[in-house]
Amino acid sequence: MTISTGYIGLGAMGRGMAANLHGAGFLTSAWNRTRANAESFAAEHGIRLADSPEAVAAECDLIFTCVSADADLTEVVARILPQLRPGAVIVDCSTFSADTARTLAKKTGEAGGSFLDAPVSGGVEGANKGTLAMMVGGDAAALEKARPALEAVAARIVHMGASGAGQATKAVNQIMAAGINQAVSEALAFGTAQGLDMDKVIEVVSGGAAGNWFLEHRGPTMTHGRFDPGFKVALHHKDLGICRAMAGDVRLVSVEQTLTEYEQLMEQGHGEEDISALFRIKSAKFNQDA
Amino acid sequence: MTISTGYIGLGAMGRGMAANLHGAGFLTSAWNRTRANAESFAAEHGIRLADSPEAVAAECDLIFTCVSADADLTEVVARILPQLRPGAVIVDCSTFSADTARTLAKKTGEAGGSFLDAPVSGGVEGANKGTLAMMVGGDAAALEKARPALEAVAARIVHMGASGAGQATKAVNQIMAAGINQAVSEALAFGTAQGLDMDKVIEVVSGGAAGNWFLEHRGPTMTHGRFDPGFKVALHHKDLGICRAMAGDVRLVSVEQTLTEYEQLMEQGHGEEDISALFRIKSAKFNQDA
Repeated sequence: MTISTGYIGLGAMGRGMAANLHGAGFLTSAWNRTRANAESFAAEHGIRLADSPEAVAAECDLIFTCVSADADLTEVVARILPQLRPGAVIVDCSTFSADTARTLAKKTGEAGGSFLDAPVSGGVEGANKGTLAMMVGGDAAALEKARPALEAVAARIVHMGASGAGQATKAVNQIMAAGINQAVSEALAFGTAQGLDMDKVIEVVSGGAAGNWFLEHRGPTMTHGRFDPGFKVALHHKDLGICRAMAGDVRLVSVEQTLTEYEQLMEQGHGEEDISALFRIKSAKFNQDA
Repeated sequence: MTISTGYIGLGAMGRGMAANLHGAGFLTSAWNRTRANAESFAAEHGIRLADSPEAVAAECDLIFTCVSADADLTEVVARILPQLRPGAVIVDCSTFSADTARTLAKKTGEAGGSFLDAPVSGGVEGANKGTLAMMVGGDAAALEKARPALEAVAARIVHMGASGAGQATKAVNQIMAAGINQAVSEALAFGTAQGLDMDKVIEVVSGGAAGNWFLEHRGPTMTHGRFDPGFKVALHHKDLGICRAMAGDVRLVSVEQTLTEYEQLMEQGHGEEDISALFRIKSAKFNQDA
């Protein structure tokens, strides 16, 4: 028997995941804070919209949440917990601090359920295709209970450890993504200034020890001045602020540089573009201030 | 008929390439500045050592050079040119400035031959296996003449454009490698400080949008404190100095950070280690100053 599953937060990531859960026969109901934004999506996929997070909690043993800020998540979980079915599992796919994950896990445990911090990587494409990588922190038994449904949304599911370990791993991912954005945009700005055929450069560099996903997937668009998301500057900026707050004694030189430059981009009105818009800062070719 | 081929500069990269040229039936003779260092290698492979670069030039229509600094290359080419056979092609696989490449191409042209700047990536492993990626600048007809021999040493041969374009592309590669080293070492230092199981972190992050060759191949060793080369800190430091000199108005923030930190590593006696030794600077776990 499939576990009755609810989905809270039908943003760009949540829609793909909810659609895949629905397609695999798991989804009982879904909820979005701004109902009007979700109605045509729900109608198109035959997904039933619940009236509240409380209503989702009352009818589901597995509840996905995917919201965009710590405060939203804390509020949604506070609404869910009084209605939580015994042994229910909350799987949160948002990106927030490891401390928040540990706090919510404790509260959910006291309400008789389990909370997994399960941030994902792979972007909107991965959410749509069901090929996300999922980094899970929390109770191993709760993960096994949720796993059949998780497999409908993620191609790779790794249990990282206790509550917070999923978020700490996601932070590693976001820090690395910032550094790689720096690496790729700086190197391609140099190549552009050298007058090279950048399509050829990307081809040959991708085959060597400097090869990386971002270069292959974003290099060809950024060097042609196309910055459609993808992963938005403003969202990565938010995530990097979380990483900075978690860092303690570790110096995050690339993250600090990236935060400063993302703030420049947001001031210039590019916050909703893909993070590869960092190329605007690095290359005179697309820098409106240059 | 195979083109008579000579190889000048039997260092770590040159040996693998010379052995592959010899195995494919191209190699007529080879020369190394310090003959004693090359004698056992030559004897083992049945390669004939010439007495001088002049002697190599006198008997070869294709001459590979692979030396470690601009000045060495300029000197070697100056010795070759008076003996150059009509229409001979010099293929240089060293890393140096695009300006030097253009100067040497001009001089070689005046001597009745052609000069290709053909730096490679793929490291000593690639040189040994004949799987290098080669970025070529210079005359297209000279490249076609050399191509059968190039195919004995490289799996990917891309004509980037006029003289200097090969070196400019290699510079893009070295700049990107510096930035990625920053990205990976910073993110893994953060993850180590969070107490995560780093083997699992590397596995899950490799599968997503922050995935890269360096993380997969060097992440597992660096987080366990192993820094065997690979690509040596001191050599990458030299290459990044070339990139800095070529950069003009492009700000190379990651490169500057890397140069400073490589200098710290060299002062601490780690210049002959792999570039992933940057992790020593980033992580308290392996930083002797921390």
